[in-house]
Amino acid sequence: MSLQSIKYQRGSLEILDQLLLPVLSKYVPVRGVEDGWKVINKMQVRGAPAIAIVGCLSLAVEIHPEEFETKKSLRQEIEGKLNYLVSARPTAVNMKISADELIALSNELAKDDTVSVADMKQRFLHATEAMLEKDIADNRAIGANGAKTILEHVAETAGSAGASAVRVLTHCNTGSLATAGYGTALGVVRHLAELGKLEHVYCTETRPYNQGARLTAYELVHEKLPATLVLDSMVAALLRVKNIAAVVVGADRVAANGDTANKIGTYQIAVVAKHHGVPFYVAAPLTSIDLQIPSGDHIIIEVRPDREMTHVGEHRIAAPGISCWNPAFDVTPAALITGIITERGVFRPEVLKAEITALQS
Amino acid sequence: MSLQSIKYQRGSLEILDQLLLPVLSKYVPVRGVEDGWKVINKMQVRGAPAIAIVGCLSLAVEIHPEEFETKKSLRQEIEGKLNYLVSARPTAVNMKISADELIALSNELAKDDTVSVADMKQRFLHATEAMLEKDIADNRAIGANGAKTILEHVAETAGSAGASAVRVLTHCNTGSLATAGYGTALGVVRHLAELGKLEHVYCTETRPYNQGARLTAYELVHEKLPATLVLDSMVAALLRVKNIAAVVVGADRVAANGDTANKIGTYQIAVVAKHHGVPFYVAAPLTSIDLQIPSGDHIIIEVRPDREMTHVGEHRIAAPGISCWNPAFDVTPAALITGIITERGVFRPEVLKAEITALQS
Repeated sequence: MSLQSIKYQRGSLEILDQLLLPVLSKYVPVRGVEDGWKVINKMQVRGAPAIAIVGCLSLAVEIHPEEFETKKSLRQEIEGKLNYLVSARPTAVNMKISADELIALSNELAKDDTVSVADMKQRFLHATEAMLEKDIADNRAIGANGAKTILEHVAETAGSAGASAVRVLTHCNTGSLATAGYGTALGVVRHLAELGKLEHVYCTETRPYNQGARLTAYELVHEKLPATLVLDSMVAALLRVKNIAAVVVGADRVAANGDTANKIGTYQIAVVAKHHGVPFYVAAPLTSIDLQIPSGDHIIIEVRPDREMTHVGEHRIAAPGISCWNPAFDVTPAALITGIITERGVFRPEVLKAEITALQS
Repeated sequence: MSLQSIKYQRGSLEILDQLLLPVLSKYVPVRGVEDGWKVINKMQVRGAPAIAIVGCLSLAVEIHPEEFETKKSLRQEIEGKLNYLVSARPTAVNMKISADELIALSNELAKDDTVSVADMKQRFLHATEAMLEKDIADNRAIGANGAKTILEHVAETAGSAGASAVRVLTHCNTGSLATAGYGTALGVVRHLAELGKLEHVYCTETRPYNQGARLTAYELVHEKLPATLVLDSMVAALLRVKNIAAVVVGADRVAANGDTANKIGTYQIAVVAKHHGVPFYVAAPLTSIDLQIPSGDHIIIEVRPDREMTHVGEHRIAAPGISCWNPAFDVTPAALITGIITERGVFRPEVLKAEITALQS
């Protein structure tokens, strides 16, 4: 079964420390918002959906034992701390969207005279806990939608009724470790395997934090899926010789036009996929799609410290004195994306905004 | 000044152990052909030109103190041991070409009745030592030819008479550490700097052995050139935002049609350069060009052990149990190459064979 990266019971939250994987499997307690901010910022938890869930649950854990005199003081606590949590990893939009939803809920409850302060707290705790369950359900839907689309495309291309098993490539980690469970892009891979249609999955190392080598490979070995690790530099060579049916990656943020911010290297893979005529899919829950942002030009890219590139643990791997450029993400233009796989369907980038707006209206 | 990676005096050879850089600068004695084979196979010395020179000099060191009864026994020693040295890294053609040249020389001397066995040994030692000097002279010519071509292209594109300083990207290590000195692709970068026309050089990390981060960065810091390290996954993002004038890489082997085998990741960079309209140059001495091979399809790609990908030193960086694909090289099709920079000029791939044949006739 999938790994459990988030362990939550009301009043108690622990996360599997992803910086220690694959060497150590250690759970770290998250006792409140300060801990939540730190585990997100230090990347002990990562992946846009997991960041949002852990952030919100860290507030639930903090609020759970507290007594609030007034609904106003509870509302202020919720708003202030959620906005603080958003600042821990600004590129991931899911935390911002979740924060905005919970703030809107608390504003509504604060205004509603039929709701007591105790009720308001309970309703807030329920809402955060529902996110955890919804994420897993959404991921299963993403997995099913993505697997269907990939297999249909292969069947069309092959001109046969049913597709044979496929080889796919994924980047970074978008599995149980990046979400509440199952995964987005890796959920698609899991669903292909459940259908008996996964011939092989290739995962990229994903420098500088090696999420592919450490985390995706860990999940794939754990579940005994047929998998091979490649380096970030090998994608072109792989697509040239290994008959890859599709590339499927996650997203930190998708703009209204379909431009997608994701782990550094994603854009390069998309260019290479286009060159080789391999379909390139982004798998993401609707919470990763930010219709407020017209295009990728408006996405702020986090630049992280040089040390992530120059060291592995305490081991120096780059010449002392060299400068580094370390953007954590890049933006893949919509034109390179075949489809965006969500829990509500797979959308071409050019119709994404219209389709999602229609779903939500 | 450039680093000295090969220290040779007649009867004595030492190489700078590149596996220990940048942490330690340690010279390793090479006392004969067994040592030569090992330092090449273990990649303590690397780079196609340096491999050929160290291989041949290891034989020179071994033969130097030996007494040969007959020219036949000397000829057999030379032929047998050179063919053995070729087997240490089969993809690099320079060692094969150098071996064939020295074998031809020894056959010729063996047949010539005016040459004594002592003369034959001296002539053989001279021939190997001349390779060391010729490599440096050739690299300086490559540097000058490459810098001129890049600057001319920029001037043409900008529509102005003289080009301003340029930003370039290189991959792997092709500098003093990969050659007898100065370098091929890095020689082009050095020459741009000597002309005052190097605004900035970006070097890729070059997984799995990190030759870019360890060796190229080390050389660039050593010479105080304006330089920044990027990850292999960042090339597309870099070309999109940093106004790179050219990519220049080395070659392990160039086929007659211009297809080029080079460090894994080169093909991917070429695809990405094409997508962004950035000229892509291969810098290599004529000894790296193998007109006997019609195309890259005939180049055997060395697949190296998983451990290179799963560990950094003793530090495991990939999940236990994951399979790896670790081709050491890839082949860049000629259609993606703007020009091949040699010591005798810069050639478009489609005229490479004709031009070189004309030079050699």
